[in-house]
Amino acid sequence: AIIMASGAKKGILERLDAGEIVIGDGGFVFALEKRGYVKAGPWTPEAAAEYPEAVRQLHREFLRAGSNVMQTFTFYASDDKLENRGHTQRFTGQQINEAACDLAREVANEGDALVAGGVSQTPSYLSCKSENDVKAIFKKQIDVFVKKNVDFLIAEYFEHVEEAEWAVQVLKTTGKPVAATLCIGPEGDLNKVSPGDCAVRLVKAGAQIVGVNCHFDPETCVKTVKMMKAGVEKAGLKAHYMTQPLAFHTPDCNCQGFIDLPEFPFSLEPRILTRWDMQKYAREAYNAGIHYIGGCCGFEPYHTRALAEELAPERGFLPAGSEKHGNWGSGLEMHTKPWVRARARRDYWEKLKPASGRPFCPSMAMPDGWGVTKGHADLMQQKEATSQEQLKALFNKANKSH
Amino acid sequence: AIIMASGAKKGILERLDAGEIVIGDGGFVFALEKRGYVKAGPWTPEAAAEYPEAVRQLHREFLRAGSNVMQTFTFYASDDKLENRGHTQRFTGQQINEAACDLAREVANEGDALVAGGVSQTPSYLSCKSENDVKAIFKKQIDVFVKKNVDFLIAEYFEHVEEAEWAVQVLKTTGKPVAATLCIGPEGDLNKVSPGDCAVRLVKAGAQIVGVNCHFDPETCVKTVKMMKAGVEKAGLKAHYMTQPLAFHTPDCNCQGFIDLPEFPFSLEPRILTRWDMQKYAREAYNAGIHYIGGCCGFEPYHTRALAEELAPERGFLPAGSEKHGNWGSGLEMHTKPWVRARARRDYWEKLKPASGRPFCPSMAMPDGWGVTKGHADLMQQKEATSQEQLKALFNKANKSH
Amino acid sequence: AIIMASGAKKGILERLDAGEIVIGDGGFVFALEKRGYVKAGPWTPEAAAEYPEAVRQLHREFLRAGSNVMQTFTFYASDDKLENRGHTQRFTGQQINEAACDLAREVANEGDALVAGGVSQTPSYLSCKSENDVKAIFKKQIDVFVKKNVDFLIAEYFEHVEEAEWAVQVLKTTGKPVAATLCIGPEGDLNKVSPGDCAVRLVKAGAQIVGVNCHFDPETCVKTVKMMKAGVEKAGLKAHYMTQPLAFHTPDCNCQGFIDLPEFPFSLEPRILTRWDMQKYAREAYNAGIHYIGGCCGFEPYHTRALAEELAPERGFLPAGSEKHGNWGSGLEMHTKPWVRARARRDYWEKLKPASGRPFCPSMAMPDGWGVTKGHADLMQQKEATSQEQLKALFNKANKSH
Amino acid sequence: AIIMASGAKKGILERLDAGEIVIGDGGFVFALEKRGYVKAGPWTPEAAAEYPEAVRQLHREFLRAGSNVMQTFTFYASDDKLENRGHTQRFTGQQINEAACDLAREVANEGDALVAGGVSQTPSYLSCKSENDVKAIFKKQIDVFVKKNVDFLIAEYFEHVEEAEWAVQVLKTTGKPVAATLCIGPEGDLNKVSPGDCAVRLVKAGAQIVGVNCHFDPETCVKTVKMMKAGVEKAGLKAHYMTQPLAFHTPDCNCQGFIDLPEFPFSLEPRILTRWDMQKYAREAYNAGIHYIGGCCGFEPYHTRALAEELAPERGFLPAGSEKHGNWGSGLEMHTKPWVRARARRDYWEKLKPASGRPFCPSMAMPDGWGVTKGHADLMQQKEATSQEQLKALFNKANKSH
Repeated sequence: AIIMASGAKKGILERLDAGEIVIGDGGFVFALEKRGYVKAGPWTPEAAAEYPEAVRQLHREFLRAGSNVMQTFTFYASDDKLENRGHTQRFTGQQINEAACDLAREVANEGDALVAGGVSQTPSYLSCKSENDVKAIFKKQIDVFVKKNVDFLIAEYFEHVEEAEWAVQVLKTTGKPVAATLCIGPEGDLNKVSPGDCAVRLVKAGAQIVGVNCHFDPETCVKTVKMMKAGVEKAGLKAHYMTQPLAFHTPDCNCQGFIDLPEFPFSLEPRILTRWDMQKYAREAYNAGIHYIGGCCGFEPYHTRALAEELAPERGFLPAGSEKHGNWGSGLEMHTKPWVRARARRDYWEKLKPASGRPFCPSMAMPDGWGVTKGHADLMQQKEATSQEQLKALFNKANKSH
Repeated sequence: AIIMASGAKKGILERLDAGEIVIGDGGFVFALEKRGYVKAGPWTPEAAAEYPEAVRQLHREFLRAGSNVMQTFTFYASDDKLENRGHTQRFTGQQINEAACDLAREVANEGDALVAGGVSQTPSYLSCKSENDVKAIFKKQIDVFVKKNVDFLIAEYFEHVEEAEWAVQVLKTTGKPVAATLCIGPEGDLNKVSPGDCAVRLVKAGAQIVGVNCHFDPETCVKTVKMMKAGVEKAGLKAHYMTQPLAFHTPDCNCQGFIDLPEFPFSLEPRILTRWDMQKYAREAYNAGIHYIGGCCGFEPYHTRALAEELAPERGFLPAGSEKHGNWGSGLEMHTKPWVRARARRDYWEKLKPASGRPFCPSMAMPDGWGVTKGHADLMQQKEATSQEQLKALFNKANKSH
Repeated sequence: AIIMASGAKKGILERLDAGEIVIGDGGFVFALEKRGYVKAGPWTPEAAAEYPEAVRQLHREFLRAGSNVMQTFTFYASDDKLENRGHTQRFTGQQINEAACDLAREVANEGDALVAGGVSQTPSYLSCKSENDVKAIFKKQIDVFVKKNVDFLIAEYFEHVEEAEWAVQVLKTTGKPVAATLCIGPEGDLNKVSPGDCAVRLVKAGAQIVGVNCHFDPETCVKTVKMMKAGVEKAGLKAHYMTQPLAFHTPDCNCQGFIDLPEFPFSLEPRILTRWDMQKYAREAYNAGIHYIGGCCGFEPYHTRALAEELAPERGFLPAGSEKHGNWGSGLEMHTKPWVRARARRDYWEKLKPASGRPFCPSMAMPDGWGVTKGHADLMQQKEATSQEQLKALFNKANKSH
Repeated sequence: AIIMASGAKKGILERLDAGEIVIGDGGFVFALEKRGYVKAGPWTPEAAAEYPEAVRQLHREFLRAGSNVMQTFTFYASDDKLENRGHTQRFTGQQINEAACDLAREVANEGDALVAGGVSQTPSYLSCKSENDVKAIFKKQIDVFVKKNVDFLIAEYFEHVEEAEWAVQVLKTTGKPVAATLCIGPEGDLNKVSPGDCAVRLVKAGAQIVGVNCHFDPETCVKTVKMMKAGVEKAGLKAHYMTQPLAFHTPDCNCQGFIDLPEFPFSLEPRILTRWDMQKYAREAYNAGIHYIGGCCGFEPYHTRALAEELAPERGFLPAGSEKHGNWGSGLEMHTKPWVRARARRDYWEKLKPASGRPFCPSMAMPDGWGVTKGHADLMQQKEATSQEQLKALFNKANKSH
């Protein structure tokens, strides 16, 4: 890999304006949970300070897989969240955010990648704090990003477009490029604001790149971003588009995404996408006019590499990690058994419908939520009636009773 | 973690003789393939020399997950295999084997783990080389293990008990403890030698620990080792038992294991075991009298941690990695949504039948092999007639025609 | 059963106006195909004349199951259809229609059932014949119904509301009550006229009862009739509602219904509804304000009996056939094996998720149609662009080239 | 159909001795339960006397489908069973048995079919009555068969070979040909007598035709009869072979067959075999040397017709019912939609893996029985320990406590 000084690199907007494809990285909390460095439930990123070698290694693997962006491992690293989630105080929020920036920068400098500082939704918003209070939370994280001179900023994983707008407004004060992604599907945000309207509001708030991340599978995310794009274009605005979906199949989700699947978060294995599913995603995203193509929870480096490999003809090069990967399974040509060698072709893997080896398991699940017990049909109706007010009321009640 | 000098540690046989449970590590080739450092098809371990930081990190994750054994990353690192598989000659076989020993020792010294040097089946045997030639191949790898002073040796991944016997005989010359595991299921080795007879032959050849690794899921492996144990006991012999299964559900395998599943190796995702499946496996293995309990292809550190957590009551301690894991999902108690908090209990996860999110996929597959086209029933008959002679003839023919 | 003269019975509108529940019968072509009297493909009802004992027996079974309506077995018995489908000329269309009326009347007189004469969509309409030509086709069948003095008339199985309107207009000339059901789902007719608009047009054309039959499973049909009801009410009109769905689960259908499922018509078995699915359907239809509740293809007498049993509390009586059926499996209380006796309860059957015993089969299928090869997502888009003009053009082209 | 006097027909043994294929009929209790004339649980055949037109019609449909045997509808019509099952005394056992004989003879005379009188296992045996008592039960039914001059006799649906031997011994006293079928799988009868040993004992008791019926799917039944045939041949004996399996897929059964599946008897729909599954069964049975090929529970006339159609090349003729059936779906050539016409070919239906349309359902079930709660593996072990004594003790205890 060619090592370049950060200053020599093209910025995120220069790349996208030039029509380049930008490959994102994958979600760190899930990948590091499997490796033993993040606790499911709190999902906080103390490991950036506690176990830097583990975080650095994951950055390196995504870089090698073709990622052009190293997102700082600062998910849920706002002060209110760290406190809320039982943070142990071994490191301050400031230390965690700084360590995450340093690791991202160190690895980004080993290849052609930019550093993106990320903020995400806050407990403060959900508990109805004021706009000023919520913005102050974001400001604190962003101060670190400015100090550490990240290349651009991402407001990601917002369920309410209003909070995302606030975040974008704070991020814009830095003068750096701003991307904003909601964790929503085609039904819109939790206040039922449609994807198209959400995107328009984010662009008007100042985001140059808009899209979705997390909560849904690639197919659903691409569909949602297409709706965003249509909305932005109809409003006579302009933006770049990005998508960072799950690496889990979620055709059976309701509007809350994979959180409400009964398998979340400890039995999602049968839903993991294959590398071939990923190539399909990359192609469909690209065909939809989405040029910032990355991943979120469930992504492992080989998933990201599949994105880069699928789009290698358009980009003109393969990622470093393809050194250890045969195109469409061609590495199997060296296998001992002849019938395994016969699998070394695109047609084989594209057509294969992989079995689960779980004959006692169904293919679809019923999402949880709001005391639903009467099945999917009822749930669909129930959703219609759920306003944010009801949601907050429910949270408040539930939080008190627990 | 308490750092101890190697000399201070109890050896593998002392542990097993004392009734201790030994937790193995997981398979490196699959885990590193996903991370971008091993090529599927050749499956060779050049990364030990090429990307030591990636291999070291994986060792550390398994150590943290509770592994008491760091197996040297020397799978398929015999000279004949490396050549056969198109090894690039950037590093010699000797260098790869030495680097692998150093990495395993470095990490083992960071905790309570032993280093095991491993040899596996050779192309030389399959192509009918003489006993002397095959033994010379093993000897070369073992010379490195002796030089690097590993704590014990494992002959693993053998499809023919005869070749495993030869390996054990060579390993025994070192004076170190020897474990031997075949990659077979209840139907026995590829010459139809039953698991019981295989185990007796391995014990007679000098192995102190016998069992199976790879090729089948935990349920099948535990069943097979139980047959081995019954055979050894019936013969009036004594041994310790180990099992290092796949982390994939494979109820639909034929005698060749997961290699013949159509999903091997690039679409196995829906078959990946959950952590709860792993706890079940650990319990069943322990109940069957198997005290060396590890994993093979598909194992990620969280799978290994699940083994250590399940057996924590018997062992008296949790692994370091449990710092980031709530028992039976208890970390979810901090989740924002109340219905997700309701999943923080053993009963929930034990009863859940996880959906695949793949409504167009079946639950079972038809194994490939020997030009089989008429389905499972026929395959079962075909298998009866397949001797090693036919197998070799087929290989020779197939190799010539490709 | 009490035998009453036809004149003594309450008419269909008197029943529905009085708030009574009317149980329909099931589809004859599928039931008689399984019994060997109807040919799949042509689906024509010559058996009414050829094998009257078989048709009479099926009528009797539905009567015994609780049906209040004996539909004449005149599906696809219009002259143009009989010719089109290679009718053998052993009996004229007139003879078939007359025989069907006689059989329905004979059995209706054995219980509390009315006779309904039915017409369905014509090849003449699809091949763009004039309104007059198409109406002449209906007129010919209706002349027989008038001569045989059926109790009311049903225009059923129409894919285009326009043709159904024409049928209703002809049926209205008889002075008898008229019901009209389309074979459409929530997406509307093949010209994309919504269910609500379709229903309004049918009511305006003179139908007193409107709804859907065939093509979709009960869940989809109830949903569609709810949309019809909403449309009619919004237009300030009044009607009674009916639904006669498939006895096959079809969650994976496109707008053409089960015809486009790859399993149609010879491998639909795994989709057959249980009696418990039927009880759920009856309850949901009733709760939706649908009071004429029957069935179509796939219904066997036990399915119809389940409708009558579910609604027995509302109706005040059980059907004759319940003599041979224990409520919610209570007949199992006499079973030899204790664990089978334990199944004699509602809770057991309502919660059971029945296995298919087909581990190599998926749960969902991809519908066929219009040369679709790229899967469901593309199909969905394709559908948007399909006008009736395109459809007709395709048919014409396809008919010429075959 | 050509009507022949009974005397003019070749007997069952003459047919089989001449190498002819004999097509059996299907199970009446399940088919008539769906039609409303048999109660699930008791499963007794009062309908022969109560609703003769329904029973006659079913006989006619099987005759038309190609059956060469009309079995008297006398299943569970022994006096002890009728009493046990709460028989209402409207008709005596004698009247039911006589009516069943008359119906079978009437229809058999309408075509080329023989009448077979059938006896099945008795409550007397299960409650440990003496050999003499049990034989007296059989004798009473057989007296009717002799009086009504059936063409041959079948002892069917026995779970214990000892009781079947007693039945055969009684049947032999009539001088008529005797067939004997157990409802067992490859694991043998409930006393663990192997299929081979069971068959030898039945042949020695005097049965000229031996095999299995009910309880398992065709694949399992053919496998079991092959084991019977191997046993008979190894013993140097001779016999003809027959199989009358379920029309339900049951790969997940334990030794008690479909009774122990949780879906029995009211949610078996997803398991129903297609006509193409039946053609496969007919071919496999024929290839295995089984020449009496029929069906049991779940068979509808179209299933039986599929057997006759598959073996038409060997037999030289099609059944009458093929008048209404196109070979391999060829009737679809007349379908309106071109993509449905494209299904009019063997290759299409043979390869199709039919979807269940039930994405929330698994493909396999856990059999019930003996308080099993820990899953299939445990069940398998439990079965080993279950002797007939334990079974009887359990029944006695369970019967007392209910």
